[in-house]
Amino acid sequence: MNTIVMKFGGTSVANNEKLRNIAEIVTREVKNHKIVVVLSAMAGETNKLQSYLDEFGSKNSIESDLVLTSGEQVTIGLLSAALKNKGIKSIPLLGWQVPIITDESYEKAKILKVDNNRIEKYFKENDVIVLAGFQGININGKITSLGRGGSDTTAVAIASAIDAQRCDIYTDVEGVFTTDPNIEKNAKKISKLSFEEMLEMSSTGAKVLHTRSVELAMKNNLTLQVLSSLTQNTGTLIIDEEDLIEKEIVSGVSYSKNEAKVTISGILDKPGISAKIFGLMAENNINVDMIVQNISQDGIFANITFTINQKDHDLTKTVIENSEKILEYKSLSLDKNVAKISVIGMGMMSQSGVAEKMFKTLAKNAINILAISTSEIKISVLIDEKHTNIAVKSLHEVYNL
Amino acid sequence: MNTIVMKFGGTSVANNEKLRNIAEIVTREVKNHKIVVVLSAMAGETNKLQSYLDEFGSKNSIESDLVLTSGEQVTIGLLSAALKNKGIKSIPLLGWQVPIITDESYEKAKILKVDNNRIEKYFKENDVIVLAGFQGININGKITSLGRGGSDTTAVAIASAIDAQRCDIYTDVEGVFTTDPNIEKNAKKISKLSFEEMLEMSSTGAKVLHTRSVELAMKNNLTLQVLSSLTQNTGTLIIDEEDLIEKEIVSGVSYSKNEAKVTISGILDKPGISAKIFGLMAENNINVDMIVQNISQDGIFANITFTINQKDHDLTKTVIENSEKILEYKSLSLDKNVAKISVIGMGMMSQSGVAEKMFKTLAKNAINILAISTSEIKISVLIDEKHTNIAVKSLHEVYNL
Repeated sequence: MNTIVMKFGGTSVANNEKLRNIAEIVTREVKNHKIVVVLSAMAGETNKLQSYLDEFGSKNSIESDLVLTSGEQVTIGLLSAALKNKGIKSIPLLGWQVPIITDESYEKAKILKVDNNRIEKYFKENDVIVLAGFQGININGKITSLGRGGSDTTAVAIASAIDAQRCDIYTDVEGVFTTDPNIEKNAKKISKLSFEEMLEMSSTGAKVLHTRSVELAMKNNLTLQVLSSLTQNTGTLIIDEEDLIEKEIVSGVSYSKNEAKVTISGILDKPGISAKIFGLMAENNINVDMIVQNISQDGIFANITFTINQKDHDLTKTVIENSEKILEYKSLSLDKNVAKISVIGMGMMSQSGVAEKMFKTLAKNAINILAISTSEIKISVLIDEKHTNIAVKSLHEVYNL
Repeated sequence: MNTIVMKFGGTSVANNEKLRNIAEIVTREVKNHKIVVVLSAMAGETNKLQSYLDEFGSKNSIESDLVLTSGEQVTIGLLSAALKNKGIKSIPLLGWQVPIITDESYEKAKILKVDNNRIEKYFKENDVIVLAGFQGININGKITSLGRGGSDTTAVAIASAIDAQRCDIYTDVEGVFTTDPNIEKNAKKISKLSFEEMLEMSSTGAKVLHTRSVELAMKNNLTLQVLSSLTQNTGTLIIDEEDLIEKEIVSGVSYSKNEAKVTISGILDKPGISAKIFGLMAENNINVDMIVQNISQDGIFANITFTINQKDHDLTKTVIENSEKILEYKSLSLDKNVAKISVIGMGMMSQSGVAEKMFKTLAKNAINILAISTSEIKISVLIDEKHTNIAVKSLHEVYNL
């Protein structure tokens, strides 16, 4: 069966007019394919429901996921109605009707299994299945949600389960860009990108795809395409590294302002102290990203700096302050006014001098580097948030993007 | 198990403040009972969703019921969260999770079976089950809805299935009144009413309870109570006729402005002509209520007048006009400016003169009767709509209500 999966996010389904536009796009594709369309809730809907829940302090519960997953029920019903109105054989399906089986956590459930039997049964009588993104069902028969951006993961999971030819992720931009076009007007659309590069981009701030969806596509070697629901241009293909003929040294520059910097000063420089600190962070589910440890000059006291997600700012402060007696530090400071700038490219693996060029460019612009982290295909630096734009623009230029 | 069912409609769940009020009421009752709370969607929500569907012309379909049943998912999640917040052991359940099995029609599905096993299982670990009203699931695994007001029916069906002690229907009025307090300020709350009287009141315009829910309660001899979510006063008990000690001759006066009058004039007065007309109506699912046939003076031509629901006005006009050649009538007129006024009471069965008093009262007020229909416990008359208030007020007075 020649099948594709098409996913549309919240802004693409925000009202009936936009749903009609999706119906047009589906009508074009349905001539050559059977299609699973995966939809999010209308933009703003999930935030509204979240605010209701907040009033009752309901979080990560049967209740919160029940409420949060109601929005897709509306969009899939409406799109299927719009498609039928155009004479297309269509059927809407909720997560539990597939079923998409998840684990038992709420608001961040992981997909364990997608049953493709019913999908294939419905395709015998229909050309389009309109599937609710973001949701699944656990073994207790309770509705779960996959977390914000989870509809991308639904799309990739269903595409893998039915062995789809391609999974198209429609957004309001034309694809993945060399950097944020809002900052650098010369940013260009990337035509092909490896899974690894896309993963680094997603995790360093490019908000195009849910990180887990890219991981899942990579694992299943499923071709992803990011494209716009507003134009008919080709988007960005995300494919296996092996299939990339020309590997760019630097494919893109991304940034994230969601970081916070934590500095613990005057800590006793003895073995096991780092393990204690990062053990505390792990116990409290706080992800630590970059770490800089200053070796003490006197051999007694040291400073440790690391970065966390801004959402964990208050929790981190409380956790460390409550452990003051164990850690025996002199002072603690937290700073939200930082940004992480990353350059990403498969070609880095075989090319030297990429990091040097990055550091020189930042130095030339008088931007101080507060911390560094690297992977095989990525270099990230932490800088003062106010330098974000100039850093992005100068790096975009120096790597000829 | 000492169990009660409590049902709250759309205006009672319209926002978080109102949901908190329900949580208070449930907290009072949970000391002595296990409780199933049945909720509607937030007031206005179903109308909003209906307007989206109308744009795509989706009606009585998998899609329309999927969209229309999304609202209760929000309210049950929020109320269960509010109850947990107060330390009450609560769990939310959707129709398909019970399951409430319905037939295969959409937007007017009938409940075939309510499985009480899961309810009883959940009561082992919870004191409150918050159940979505209005919805069920058919044998194809598709979500169905029971039609407007269907949450009353859900409440009665679940109460019957678990053999509840009582089913309390909370509304924004204090119970069933002798007539509409908006018209007659002396209208009084009725403390006890038979199922039969309540059925006649529901079907003649008192909008307190969904007719089907009363039928179902009567069939299962389940005590219903209509009461206010805004006060702590006792409401109206709706019970078996046998349990009514004092049977009022007239319990209440109701009215409906949803009627339309159809008059077919100059029709050949020959056998079978009525059967033809009302056969046509039945074929097109148009309910006919009152019928008046004038016997022709010349023995050749007759007039037939009958009433229908206003929503069927246009359809009726088309159907009759399209059958002009078969029916051979001279003229057709339809009139929406009519109202049906009914007096209802169990005591009528054993008391004469009730109708006479009604006709005299209307005559004294110069109100012309356009049609009459009666049952054992009800007399209805059709009048010009502009006389509604004076008819209701004068009848309410003459029967000492």
